[in-house]
Amino acid sequence: MNNVHSQRVNSLLGAIEDIGRDAKRGGYSRPVYSAAENTLREWFIAEATGRSLEVSTDANGIIWAWWDLPGSAKNAASRRGALVTGSHLDSVPGGGAFDGPLGVASALAAYDQLAAREASGELVRNRAMAITVFPEEEGSRFGVACLGSRLLTGAIDPVRALNLRDEQGNTFAEVATAHGLDPARMGRDETALAQIGDFIELHVEQGKGLNSEEHTDHAGRGPAIAVGDTILGHGRWRLSFSGQGNHAGTTLMADRSDPMIAAAQTIVAVRSIGSAQDNARATVGRLEPVPGGTNVIASRVDLWLDVRHPEDAVTAMLVEKIHGQAQKLAAFEGCTVHLTEESFSNTVHFDAGLTRSLAQSVRRLVPGAPLLPTGAGHDAGVLAALVPSGMLYVRNPSGISHSPQEYVEDDDASAGVVALADALEDLL
Amino acid sequence: MNNVHSQRVNSLLGAIEDIGRDAKRGGYSRPVYSAAENTLREWFIAEATGRSLEVSTDANGIIWAWWDLPGSAKNAASRRGALVTGSHLDSVPGGGAFDGPLGVASALAAYDQLAAREASGELVRNRAMAITVFPEEEGSRFGVACLGSRLLTGAIDPVRALNLRDEQGNTFAEVATAHGLDPARMGRDETALAQIGDFIELHVEQGKGLNSEEHTDHAGRGPAIAVGDTILGHGRWRLSFSGQGNHAGTTLMADRSDPMIAAAQTIVAVRSIGSAQDNARATVGRLEPVPGGTNVIASRVDLWLDVRHPEDAVTAMLVEKIHGQAQKLAAFEGCTVHLTEESFSNTVHFDAGLTRSLAQSVRRLVPGAPLLPTGAGHDAGVLAALVPSGMLYVRNPSGISHSPQEYVEDDDASAGVVALADALEDLL
Repeated sequence: MNNVHSQRVNSLLGAIEDIGRDAKRGGYSRPVYSAAENTLREWFIAEATGRSLEVSTDANGIIWAWWDLPGSAKNAASRRGALVTGSHLDSVPGGGAFDGPLGVASALAAYDQLAAREASGELVRNRAMAITVFPEEEGSRFGVACLGSRLLTGAIDPVRALNLRDEQGNTFAEVATAHGLDPARMGRDETALAQIGDFIELHVEQGKGLNSEEHTDHAGRGPAIAVGDTILGHGRWRLSFSGQGNHAGTTLMADRSDPMIAAAQTIVAVRSIGSAQDNARATVGRLEPVPGGTNVIASRVDLWLDVRHPEDAVTAMLVEKIHGQAQKLAAFEGCTVHLTEESFSNTVHFDAGLTRSLAQSVRRLVPGAPLLPTGAGHDAGVLAALVPSGMLYVRNPSGISHSPQEYVEDDDASAGVVALADALEDLL
Repeated sequence: MNNVHSQRVNSLLGAIEDIGRDAKRGGYSRPVYSAAENTLREWFIAEATGRSLEVSTDANGIIWAWWDLPGSAKNAASRRGALVTGSHLDSVPGGGAFDGPLGVASALAAYDQLAAREASGELVRNRAMAITVFPEEEGSRFGVACLGSRLLTGAIDPVRALNLRDEQGNTFAEVATAHGLDPARMGRDETALAQIGDFIELHVEQGKGLNSEEHTDHAGRGPAIAVGDTILGHGRWRLSFSGQGNHAGTTLMADRSDPMIAAAQTIVAVRSIGSAQDNARATVGRLEPVPGGTNVIASRVDLWLDVRHPEDAVTAMLVEKIHGQAQKLAAFEGCTVHLTEESFSNTVHFDAGLTRSLAQSVRRLVPGAPLLPTGAGHDAGVLAALVPSGMLYVRNPSGISHSPQEYVEDDDASAGVVALADALEDLL
């Protein structure tokens, strides 16, 4: 039976495996509203429509595919308090095949299971269900992760969101308008929120939790599925170092105010400060020198800082420490530095009741399925502020994610579909 | 009289002042064979054709505008040993208005002077003259500076040149072909070389030589013009650090092999090693993390190293030291590093006889015109290996170059035109 589900979820993922490949970085680059992500959206809409789900895209660009109760009206009232599951289709630059699409494909495959159970009379539902696709979960294009769910819940001011720019200088307002959305209608959506009775997101695990010593068997193999417990608080900050741009050949070493030096020293400090704090992660994965010529001393260097810790006060303290260090290092080089917070998310504790229900359902299939914290942000984490939300993680043998090497074994993907279908059934 | 020349050279530069402006970086971005640089080439061709110069583009993409001897045949034989002057129109990303275009515009304005002198019988020439525009002097698009003159002289293997790629992944062969050039014909061009009897390049000074204490008057003002003496040996190397790409939130600090850390520490080492060596410059102005996402630990970081020193053996020793340090730092992070030499130019001593002639001519106008070394590479430096070459520098009040702040005062630009015209007249 696992093989059937494995084939289903894999053939769903197989259909999109050539969309948005990144020849330069490896893996996939599927930024929101790019040609690649648009093709994935069309694929999802075709798959959902083919299953007779009723598909619509809301004011914030979230796609909803409705499985209404048999014979019920297809309106907001009949959909109030529905069970909603889904994930995202956008990727980080050079990301893997599973982060996002696995949750969407598993939701479609789980629906197939549930529809068959309903047709056979095995399942009698009490409420409607929807599959959702959220835009800009990664924040790879406009810098703010979970932008769709932040807009939906009002966690970001739509005016701020609409003024975000991508690397080409296009505003989110311009790109969203070109995509057929109306910027004036964006923002917190009470009708849509009232339709989410519970939200479940299935996602590839992005660490080694399921493969940790605590959870692996004698053969060193961890369980296929975990249930989400907490999401580490996390944020993104931009540090802009300014100095004196000049010619790399004619400017004496002693005459320089080179912001690249201060930025490099700050990167080293970020690692030291992050490593000295238990349970913290502090990363610089993106850096842009301006103008960025080989024979040019940079006039400005922007670097992006990602900091996470279970206690939000500690995260704030770490960023303050890094900023203070960056200021000292910049001043010593005759440069200045400016800190901008691009996003911040508190530590999330998923709904206790929903988590208990998920764990009970999943453990019928995977008895050892643990509760796991994660350091990765998710739309489920943003929604958790307003509606009961929970997550299922599928085992990732290497723990590597946000990389072409991210991987899920067929049998685990298959177990994920059954676990999701069972968990949804128990909540329907 | 200066005002007339000032108006001429300024109105020439004024005509192109809106081409290739870079709204993001400030200044100009005019990479070779981009829309902006192509527009500048068309502007030059129109200006030269309007002066009845005979214009052609050679196999290596160098534009030649010929002022043949009155009544002579317009062929390779009659042009052998001609006097050639010129510069380039491409820029570094976010560069200034003068680096390159000042030399081209001054050559056109000097021609106007010389043509008037010939018409009045004041000048009787012994040889033809040409104005040249070299492509990819900055190496901003394909990574190798002075690519046009290197191809012309055979200083670069055309096969290597044709396989160079720009940031979008296009090869130089593809871009040159799209520009109407024939890759099969590129490379050392004996006919063209035989036409260069002497080569003179006028250029904005890219340092503070003319404003140094040694040369300034009581009011602190340096002379308008200098004559080139030597060009510092310089080279470009790429250091590629490879590590393990992963998720910035889920990967423990202790579990990382983050190439950004090794790259940052190497940047700090580059500055220390460069500063410890008299007369050396060592710069990292360009760095690219792959994939470059905020929430992604980089899997690779490429950085470009620019090293210059009057003694080529010292440059080699500095690069070796930096490479050794980078290897140690990478290994400590569980990363690897690979060094690639992208270009190297020996220290250039301009032709002694030609330099003496230039100094004599210029000092009639600017008595205090000094001989100056420079840390900046130029096509004149590449040509110097095969033909007598020399340079004139025009004062740059701040010494800042490769920056939007690069600047030349009108009177100095005007003096440059007269000095160039006088120097050319003495050599014609």
